[in-house]
Formats: sequence, structure tokens, C-alpha cells
Amino acid sequence: MDAIFYEAFSEEKRALLRHLPKEVKADFSKGPIPSKPSPKPPARLISIRTQSIIPCGWAAHLAGVLTRSSGYDHVVAFRSRCKGNVSCGYLPSYCARAVAEHALLMTMTLARKLKRQMKNFTAFDRDDITGTECLNRTLVVAGVGRIGSEIVRLGVGVGMRVLGVDLVKRLPSLEYVSLEEGVSVADVLVCALPLTIQTRGLLRYELLRRARRGMLFVNISRGEISPTRDLKRLLREGTLSGIGLDVFEDEPELASFLRSGKGNLTPSGKAALQLLKDDRVLMTPHNAFNTQEALERKAKQSVESVVAFLRQGFFPDPIPEEAFEVTPPTSPPGKILEE
Amino acid sequence: MDAIFYEAFSEEKRALLRHLPKEVKADFSKGPIPSKPSPKPPARLISIRTQSIIPCGWAAHLAGVLTRSSGYDHVVAFRSRCKGNVSCGYLPSYCARAVAEHALLMTMTLARKLKRQMKNFTAFDRDDITGTECLNRTLVVAGVGRIGSEIVRLGVGVGMRVLGVDLVKRLPSLEYVSLEEGVSVADVLVCALPLTIQTRGLLRYELLRRARRGMLFVNISRGEISPTRDLKRLLREGTLSGIGLDVFEDEPELASFLRSGKGNLTPSGKAALQLLKDDRVLMTPHNAFNTQEALERKAKQSVESVVAFLRQGFFPDPIPEEAFEVTPPTSPPGKILEE
Repeated sequence: MDAIFYEAFSEEKRALLRHLPKEVKADFSKGPIPSKPSPKPPARLISIRTQSIIPCGWAAHLAGVLTRSSGYDHVVAFRSRCKGNVSCGYLPSYCARAVAEHALLMTMTLARKLKRQMKNFTAFDRDDITGTECLNRTLVVAGVGRIGSEIVRLGVGVGMRVLGVDLVKRLPSLEYVSLEEGVSVADVLVCALPLTIQTRGLLRYELLRRARRGMLFVNISRGEISPTRDLKRLLREGTLSGIGLDVFEDEPELASFLRSGKGNLTPSGKAALQLLKDDRVLMTPHNAFNTQEALERKAKQSVESVVAFLRQGFFPDPIPEEAFEVTPPTSPPGKILEE
Repeated sequence: MDAIFYEAFSEEKRALLRHLPKEVKADFSKGPIPSKPSPKPPARLISIRTQSIIPCGWAAHLAGVLTRSSGYDHVVAFRSRCKGNVSCGYLPSYCARAVAEHALLMTMTLARKLKRQMKNFTAFDRDDITGTECLNRTLVVAGVGRIGSEIVRLGVGVGMRVLGVDLVKRLPSLEYVSLEEGVSVADVLVCALPLTIQTRGLLRYELLRRARRGMLFVNISRGEISPTRDLKRLLREGTLSGIGLDVFEDEPELASFLRSGKGNLTPSGKAALQLLKDDRVLMTPHNAFNTQEALERKAKQSVESVVAFLRQGFFPDPIPEEAFEVTPPTSPPGKILEE
């Protein structure tokens, strides 16, 4: 067998099979790598999403690991845990557009008080639903990578004044500012930063309290960057007038609690559920990536990566070597986020 | 006294006063023209919104009527009912951007199944919330006037392929198609048509059933153009996969029923309330116009119109003479829509 795809739910398996050339012999598993795995991997090339824990015993037998996700914390954790020198690939760009459009949708939903508009419809009542327009408002995008760049494009497209915050200035036509300056001038701040040791807790109370009164805040990258209890306080104090979250601090615990109704909520999870009741807060279940187009691109890019690896021995999008050189994230494997 | 403003609620009165030059002597009334009015108007120039019924006895004493709305059906009805030759002005463009942004928000909300996403959050569940992206989708804008032109601009801005349907081709860079062709190729159809004898019931079942399966439909102009029971049937049959309505057929009766919980619903009103329960349907209370920016523009443009009329004797935006030449709408005055 050439390759095995773990965590391939039926819709994804169908899409993968549609793209896979006949000469590639592949197997599929709906679930992740079993918790009691065989001593050797079923194939020298394995593809996972983010729930699989790769056994260290497999490291010596594996030629390549492709994660079908744009995040790769969990693969970095595997290499750090098990050593070895397995080639690792990922899918950097399959969902950038989907996530960016979700960020724009969240922004407009908050700006127009849509949650309250929907409630008010039942009494055909217009009290307190005067919104604001996007045109000429200042959008600050923190983290201008692949997703952030698409958010910049959309912001410009709807007539916003867009500023970027990033260490690397990838977009020549974009005006970059420091994070502090961005926070002080933003009507809307969108967090599209990757979660690293440097960004964990970066958008905390002490920074965001310097924002203009009534700023809107949207996070579509990782909840750990903007502590939930800080956001709650900023909303209560009026610094923020709207919060859109697709990602959550302690998301695995929160998701598990919401799915099963059991388990313990962390303090941030409790704060999230309190915020959920507020009409000024919009929450979606880590779903920004989830479009038909992104699912199709994911299947196509997964197959392209697998075929390239089988033919040439390397991935078109290898996980950057720098990623393996820094201290890996401290979360245990079970706490890894999904996408 | 130079002018009286009827239907000026407190927030609007404050905005009007902020813009009004000191030399203009104006009075304000929170309510519409009283149902038992004085024999003569308090001033030769009156300004109304859309709830006032101008007495015919006033016609000979009035020099000008300014309606602070972009619709002017009710003023046409007054001139037709009472004859006379009073100058009539309106505010054609104060809310075009606000309405257009609302149309884009509705489109994205439907495309990403946001209503279901919000519900699913409570179980952190992703079943059946895979959406579609705007990029490269075909947006057909029916009615490319001031509001429609802004919708075109926004659609292009978010990367959609935009086609226009209109008798008059105002935008040289836009590709225009017939309504039939537009319906047959649209991923999203937005109704921005004015309500006239020609457009009443235009977007009916027999036309829209020729759409691509799963089209999204948004109406931000007048509910009478797209009969609600037809939309309901098209959703049930799968021709439509999402419906966004800010305006409603028989809207005064529906709004009155929702506000008071009393009165009789028309069949279209019943259909609307059945549709409201569907996760694929988004309804807002005729609120697309309602942004801070539009309210401010409305006050500024109202004052500019009043001042120009007092100084020069004519309105910067007179109601076009053609409007008075066609048969007026058949609705009785009480059925006139609000904005």
C-alpha cells in the first residue's frame, strides 16, 4: 500500500477518491490512528488530520506524514516527542478564503447588530438596532499571512481603510503599523495570528483597553491569543461593542462540554458561555474553514501532496524546519485543536 | 415660520438641529400630520416621512413638500388625490450604502448558513453547516439604481461575478442581462427594484423556478415584488436554498400584527411567519437603511434640501415629473411602507 488516510469522514473520502490517480494504492480510516496501534504503520506515507497521535514506534518506519490541516502544532509535537527525521507536509492554503470570508461576515454581523435585528423581527421593532457601515471604517488585521492577506483583500473590497500588523511585510501595497498603533486606531480588529509562544495571550486586557471606545473584535485563528475573560471585561467596560469568536481559549474542553453536556468547564469556558448570551457577541463552532470550496481544495491539495511525495520524495508544502527548532507548545496531545 | 418637520423622532430632531442654519425658523413634530389637521399648514414648506397623509385643503397653501425618504409613492398619491402643483422633493441617496451592505450581509449569512451555525454552537456541532464562498459566484442584481449600483460595487469587491438587470444601463462597466437570463445563471439574486405597476409580482414562482437549484434570494426593496408564498414553495422544492428578506408583502399588516400581537395576518403574512422558523431563512424588520451614517446623511441632506428650497425655490432632488404621469399605486394611504 502506498498511503493511508486517517480521519477521512465519508464526504472527504469521496472527494479524495475523486482526485486520486488509479495507480496510487490508498486505504482510508474514518477514525484517527487507533490508540492501540500495530507495531508498524500500514504504509510508509500516512496522512492525518489533527486528532491522531502518531506512535513513536512508527517513526523509524515512516517516510512521510501529511497533515490535512493548515495548523501543524501537533506534527511538531510528534517530532519533538519521538525524534527521528520523518518528512512532514501540511496544507497551508486550502481554507484561507473560507476563513477570510467568515471574518468579514462576522465583522458585518457585529457592525449591523444582526443578532439583535433577528430578535427584534419578532416584534418588528427597531429599537437599538442602528448599525454602522463598513465604508471608510478602519480595519486592522493582526497577522497578515495567507488568511490575513485574504482578509485585507476583502476589507479593501468593501471600502474599508485596512492596516496590517505583522513582523514580515508580505504585502507591498498594505500599510503596516505596530500592534499598539493598530489597536489605538481600529474600528475593527481581526486576529489572524498563528498561535506561538510569542502570541499566546498577546491580545490581553492591558493592550486592548487602549482601543477606541466601541471597537469590534473578531478572532478566527486561536482562542489562546485573546483571553476570554479579558474580552468579557472589555465588553462590559464599553471598550468593545461587539465580539465575534470562531475559536476559543481551552477549546477542546469547551467543545467536549458542549457536545456531551458533561465534564468540567475551565474558567475561560465559563466566561465564553456567559458571553454567548449577549446580543453583541457572535460565536460559531470553529467553522470558518467549512465551505464546499475549501473541502474540495483540501481533497485536491491532499492528493497533490501525496502524489508528489510518492513520485519525488518530498512534499510541495513541507512544514518549515524553523517550526521544529522552537520549543513545542506545552499543550498535551489531547488538547490539540481540530483544524 | 419657514418650515415644519413632521415625524421627527428625538434622535432625528437632534441631528436636524445640528445641521440647520440659525436663520431658518423651523418647528418639529414627533408625530405625523394630525388626522384632524388645521385648515392651513403651519408653514409653506413641510417635510414628512412616509406616515403623514397631507390634507387636500393644504395643497393651495403649500409651496413645497420634502419627504425624508428615498421612496415617494405616498407623495405621488397626494398629488394624484389632491391635484395642485406643489413642488415635491425627496432624498434619493441617503441610505444606498447602508442598504447595499445589508444585502451583502444577508447574502453571506445565507451562503455560510450562519443561523444554523449559531444554533450548532450550543452543541459545538458541525453537522450540515458547510457553506459556500462568495468568490467567483454569480451575483445578479435586479434593479441597478442607486442602491443596486452599490450592491454591484460590493459584489465586485468581494470577488463575485456580477450581472445587472435593468431597463436603463447606468453602469458602463457592468454586464447587463435580461431578467430571464439572470435568473437562469445566478448563484445569488438580489432584488433592488423599485415597486411599480410593472414590478409588482415580477419575481414570482413561474419565473424563479427556472433558477439554478440552490440559488440564494435576497430582497431589500419591496416585498410585493416577490410573493412570499411563491418563495416558500421555491424553498420547499429546493430551487432556493436560502432566503433573506428585509421587506415583506403586506408589510404594514405583518408589522402591526408583530408589534401588537393583534389583528389579522394576510396569507402572505402567515407564509412569512412559517418561513421565519426555517434555518435557511433570514428576516430583518425593514432595517437595511438603519446605520448611524445613513441617519446622519439623512439629516444633512434634509437640511440641504430645505435650505436650497427656501433660498432658490426648488429642491436639489425633485421627485421626477414622470412619476406623476403614471397611474399611482393602488394601495390606500394607510398601506404605504415606511422607508
